[in-house]
Amino acid sequence: MNQKLIITIGRQYGSGGRIIGKKIADELGISFYNKEIIEMAAKKTGMSEEAFEKVDETAASSLLYSIATGAYMFGNYVSPQVDLPLNDKLFIIQSEIIKSIANKESCVIVGRCADYILKDRKDVINIFIHADKETRKARVTDEYNISVNNVEGYLNKIDKKRSTYYNYYTGEKWGNSANYHLCLDSGALGIDGCVHIIESYIKEIGNSNKS
Amino acid sequence: MNQKLIITIGRQYGSGGRIIGKKIADELGISFYNKEIIEMAAKKTGMSEEAFEKVDETAASSLLYSIATGAYMFGNYVSPQVDLPLNDKLFIIQSEIIKSIANKESCVIVGRCADYILKDRKDVINIFIHADKETRKARVTDEYNISVNNVEGYLNKIDKKRSTYYNYYTGEKWGNSANYHLCLDSGALGIDGCVHIIESYIKEIGNSNKS
Repeated sequence: MNQKLIITIGRQYGSGGRIIGKKIADELGISFYNKEIIEMAAKKTGMSEEAFEKVDETAASSLLYSIATGAYMFGNYVSPQVDLPLNDKLFIIQSEIIKSIANKESCVIVGRCADYILKDRKDVINIFIHADKETRKARVTDEYNISVNNVEGYLNKIDKKRSTYYNYYTGEKWGNSANYHLCLDSGALGIDGCVHIIESYIKEIGNSNKS
Repeated sequence: MNQKLIITIGRQYGSGGRIIGKKIADELGISFYNKEIIEMAAKKTGMSEEAFEKVDETAASSLLYSIATGAYMFGNYVSPQVDLPLNDKLFIIQSEIIKSIANKESCVIVGRCADYILKDRKDVINIFIHADKETRKARVTDEYNISVNNVEGYLNKIDKKRSTYYNYYTGEKWGNSANYHLCLDSGALGIDGCVHIIESYIKEIGNSNKS
């Protein structure tokens, strides 16, 4: 690719959004970031990866306190050395890492409010993947090999965590189509179908940029 | 086309969703329904088209009363002869017309909660078109040739009317990606870009149905 291309993928749990993102990254020959960002945050701060893992994509409950004390402001770099909840520290460090990756290279970034963090860039395609409950339950059980008593309850819990995280840090609504350039139903299209439509989208954007 | 194909299009005001729908219908050689459904409702009931036009895609304020009196139930045919607000009458009659069109032929239907009304069918593709405010303001002023003092306020007002209508009659959230198979940003893609991606989507679904 000549032009830089950054793709962010938001996804309902079990929709296959991560797998779709990985396939797109492999086909385009660009980097793929998901949990890798936690490792990078741990390395950057010298803090434990396990501690960050626990609060990954989880909203803190004291952002208002942080704002009130002037320790944190949306969009501005604030040193994570101040006494913030670990969730907020991770969000701030992840934001810096995501911005730095986007400055450096074409890539696919999954989750972590990357669409919002990179909202001022013009070279970003924001995608959201969702699917019906039955498709997602089957994927979680068969492919992710997760065994829980109440699969639907588990899906709802993870989705709730993701939406709370997104809504909390962005002030927007997770999964609201207006926040994304392209939203796809992987239950109707399948994983490869989604990959094909995203490829068509990239081609279309490339053509319109040339004209 | 061998298989029947019904496409519903929800759209933010000024996003070009209607124009995109018309282009798709023309290219596929299938029928297109937008305001035509009001004419059909007027003919069916012998009531005035102008009266229906006034309450088109506008929620009534007394649905709870209607439910309480047993005059209206979601998903079931209820005679519009009973004393319902005109909005509810129009919704019920439009629902019957939309179901009857979908039984008869391939088509594109714009707005009017068609995605929800046809939710039990498998041959429907539900699409939502949105765009940034600047793109929509420009389209409303330049192409729709609408002259108002406060274009942004006008956009917000029509969007509010459409979302209230949709949320009221469906119990779902207008523009929430989970309600649609495909959501596109016409500000980023352009009108023809959206048409091309929808064509790719139809082709992809056709291929996966064959395999």
